[in-house]
This record gives sequence, C-alpha cells and structure tokens, in this order.
Amino acid sequence: MQITTEQAERVLKASILKARDLGVSVCIAILDSGGHLKTFHRMDGAWLGVIDVAIKKAKTSALFEMETQVLDNYSKAGADAHGIELTNGHLVTFAGGIPLKDVDGQMIGSIGVSGGQVAQDYAVAQSGQSALKG
Amino acid sequence: MQITTEQAERVLKASILKARDLGVSVCIAILDSGGHLKTFHRMDGAWLGVIDVAIKKAKTSALFEMETQVLDNYSKAGADAHGIELTNGHLVTFAGGIPLKDVDGQMIGSIGVSGGQVAQDYAVAQSGQSALKG
Amino acid sequence: MQITTEQAERVLKASILKARDLGVSVCIAILDSGGHLKTFHRMDGAWLGVIDVAIKKAKTSALFEMETQVLDNYSKAGADAHGIELTNGHLVTFAGGIPLKDVDGQMIGSIGVSGGQVAQDYAVAQSGQSALKG
Amino acid sequence: MQITTEQAERVLKASILKARDLGVSVCIAILDSGGHLKTFHRMDGAWLGVIDVAIKKAKTSALFEMETQVLDNYSKAGADAHGIELTNGHLVTFAGGIPLKDVDGQMIGSIGVSGGQVAQDYAVAQSGQSALKG
Repeated sequence: MQITTEQAERVLKASILKARDLGVSVCIAILDSGGHLKTFHRMDGAWLGVIDVAIKKAKTSALFEMETQVLDNYSKAGADAHGIELTNGHLVTFAGGIPLKDVDGQMIGSIGVSGGQVAQDYAVAQSGQSALKG
Repeated sequence: MQITTEQAERVLKASILKARDLGVSVCIAILDSGGHLKTFHRMDGAWLGVIDVAIKKAKTSALFEMETQVLDNYSKAGADAHGIELTNGHLVTFAGGIPLKDVDGQMIGSIGVSGGQVAQDYAVAQSGQSALKG
Repeated sequence: MQITTEQAERVLKASILKARDLGVSVCIAILDSGGHLKTFHRMDGAWLGVIDVAIKKAKTSALFEMETQVLDNYSKAGADAHGIELTNGHLVTFAGGIPLKDVDGQMIGSIGVSGGQVAQDYAVAQSGQSALKG
Repeated sequence: MQITTEQAERVLKASILKARDLGVSVCIAILDSGGHLKTFHRMDGAWLGVIDVAIKKAKTSALFEMETQVLDNYSKAGADAHGIELTNGHLVTFAGGIPLKDVDGQMIGSIGVSGGQVAQDYAVAQSGQSALKG
C-alpha cells in the first residue's frame, strides 16, 4: 500500500500545526514507500537550503525503512557501514526522517522535516506520523 | 516578492479542483520566482513519471518567465535556439508550466502540472494562476 | 596563454556596452582556454535561465575552439556527429559563444552570451572579442 | 530585493582591493538571495580548484542565510546535523562565505571567496560586504 492524498494531507496538516506550535519554519516532504514525492511544503521563512535536507531525510527513511538517526549507527566513523551516506545520491543520518505506517503498522511512505533544531524537526515528523493513528 | 504559503495553498486547491473536474490525476509543483520548491502534490493515481515533468515545467517557467510552450518557439527544430532545452538540467517545452503573478502583475513564482493530456495540464495550471486574482 | 584579468575586464565592459546599446539584458560568461570560469556577469533583468546558457555557450567554444553555431553543422539531424551536443555535460549549438583570441590570433579563452535574441547575443559576444584587438 | 549590478560591482571592487592588499589571488562569487550567480571573478594566479569553492561558499551562505563557518557548528563530527554538508550538491562549512545585506539589513545575496588562507578569504568577503554600507 502506498500513502494516499487523504493520508498525506493529514500528515502534512499535523506537521505544520506542530511546527507552528514550536515556532519554527520548516520544510516537510512526504514520500511513498518507493521513495517518490507525494506532498511537499515549505513554510514561509524556511531557509532555501532545507528543501533538499527535508527531501533527503524522507528519502533515507523510505529507502532504508528506518528513522534517519538510526542509520547513523551504521554510517558513523568506525561503524560497519561508514560512508553509506554517500550512496543513493547522498543520505541524511540525523533525526527528522521517519517511516510512515498506517493503522495496521504497514509502511506506506516516509516523512522528512528540516528547518528547526534537529530535535524540533524530529518532533514535527513524529506529529505527522501520529496523524495516521486512529 | 516570493509566493507565500497562503498563496500557494490557494493555487494548489484551485488546481486540484480543476483536475478533479477534468477527471485527471496530475502532479502539481509550485515554485518561487527563484525556482525553489514551495509546494508539491501528487494526486492519487498519477504516474510516478510525471513528478519530474511537473517540477521541470514549473522550473522552466520560473527561469524563463514564460509559459513552457512558448519556449518551444525558440527550441524546436530549425528555430533560433534549438537545443536550449538541454540547458539548466533540462527544460520542458510543452504546455503545463506557467508563471504565477500576484494581483499587481508581479511574478511571484510558477506552477507546473503534468499527468493529463497536455491541454488538460495547461487548463489545470491556468486554474491555479486564476486563484491569485482577486 | 590564458586570458588575464585585464583582458577579461575589457571584454566584459565592451560586451555590456553593446548589450545596453541593443537594449537587452544578458548574461556574459568568460572562460579561459581550459574552459574554466574567469569572469561572469548577469545584467539586471536577465532571466535566471540564461546563466547556464551563457556558461554552456562559452564552454562549447572553449572545448571545441569554434563559434557555437558552427558546431550545429556537425550536430544537427542527419549530420555526421548528430548528438555530440549531449557530451561534455551538454553543449549549446546556437550562436552566442565564440573563442577569444589575443592580438596575435592565439586562443586565450572564450565568451558566451545569452539573454537576447540569438543574433543579439552573437553581436554582444563579437563586441567582447573586438575589445581584444589593438 | 535582489542584488543589483551596481551593488555587485561595488562588492566585487572592494573585495579585489582587499585581496590585493593581502597579496592573495582569489576567486570571488556573488549570488542573489536565491543562490543564482550574479557576478564572478577569478584573479590572475588563483588556483583553478578554488572556482568551485568560492561558488559553493556563496551558495551555502545564500541557502542557509549564515556565514559558512557557522554551519560547521551543526555539521562537524558529533554535532546535531553532521553530514548536512552533503546536501544541496555539497556545501562548504569553513569561512569565506557570508550573506550580503543592504543598508536596511535586508538580505540581497551572498559572497564567497576562496584562494587565500581561510582567514584571508574571510577578510576579503567582509570587505565586500562592507561596500554595501553607506
């Protein structure tokens, strides 16, 4: 199953609400489970540079079915797969990208958020994911 | 001036309504006037291949401040600038990309639509632009 | 010999004067004979899309030591080297790129101009080249 | 607002004067606030390799609205956004790129300088920025 427009809109809306709550301007990218762009929005005031970061976070989570910061365990200096972040047209290995799962726990896509502090980006992405529950 | 979230949402909503009217599933990309992604949406059922077409249409209109099919007058076989479509990471020279102007006629971005017949894509893009008037 | 700052400034100044004479807003790229950027200027009002066109015109002329439109004789449909414009990260095969030669006829670089009608771009590039004579 | 030709020429001239003062040969790239090339110059004697460094420094400052070395706080080993320098076609995170602001403090573009010691590059870039004041 792939994320639908209805689901993507719920995720986007919840993410933007959370970002406004936190007072940050972010980019939010939502991909399907094949890593293809479904929905994207850049909030007013977000840096131009975070467009690509948000998309790459979502891509990383779609392609490896994990939260971006988890991949850092494998890619960091000394780790088994050091340098893996250079594959796939470059990956992002800090928090803000997470897989999106439907109510049955099935992966349907991913979300990537960038523009705030990394912990804020992660909180925004989690709010997006939560919108798919119930 | 750059397109705002409020403006982009109006453009996106009008475009999707028009696409539904026409019964087509399209991708809609909205860029600022510097060619940077502001908002994107892929309707359910749209081909994966039209993600890039929609974005490139919008990019073409942002970078050359004209509707995409106008550039064809310059790029087609025998025309003065044949091959210009190979620049800027490739351009699209058929209809569906148009500059977005605010109520004062100021260019604030562009829209690119792909997924239907070319005439349908163009109609959807025009509906998006119309949403910025009044 | 490679183009010097003093020479590049003369070429740039003459080109801009000619462009103003013609009432067009262009981008002017000046490369050395190795195809590396020496000087660039985008006039106010020039389309963003012609940055890349001007640079690619100059690159084409530097790499093949000929005016860009001459390469079209080889690259056009039916010609011997049809498709050669797809090499070197893409070339431009319409007028506006010309080799730059010093007073002794030695090639020292190239100029690429884009933003006006093709004939205007060519005239601007020629004015740039003329500034190196005498 | 975007940087004008008149402003870019002032910035470039002040930068070159400073570089000559310091006795270094540098490349100077000036972009608009959307990250698009406005003006570029490579001084005689500058390494070919610093063309790309100067442009990437300016791009980094345009896209993230900060001096390049500030981004290092986020991207260095152990920092929150380690690896962010791999996004946007690669960024530069050492000094020499700074945002350009007009007299009202409005960001209108960026400058990137490379070719000397990093501290020298930074001093040259600052001289360029200073030319926009008063």
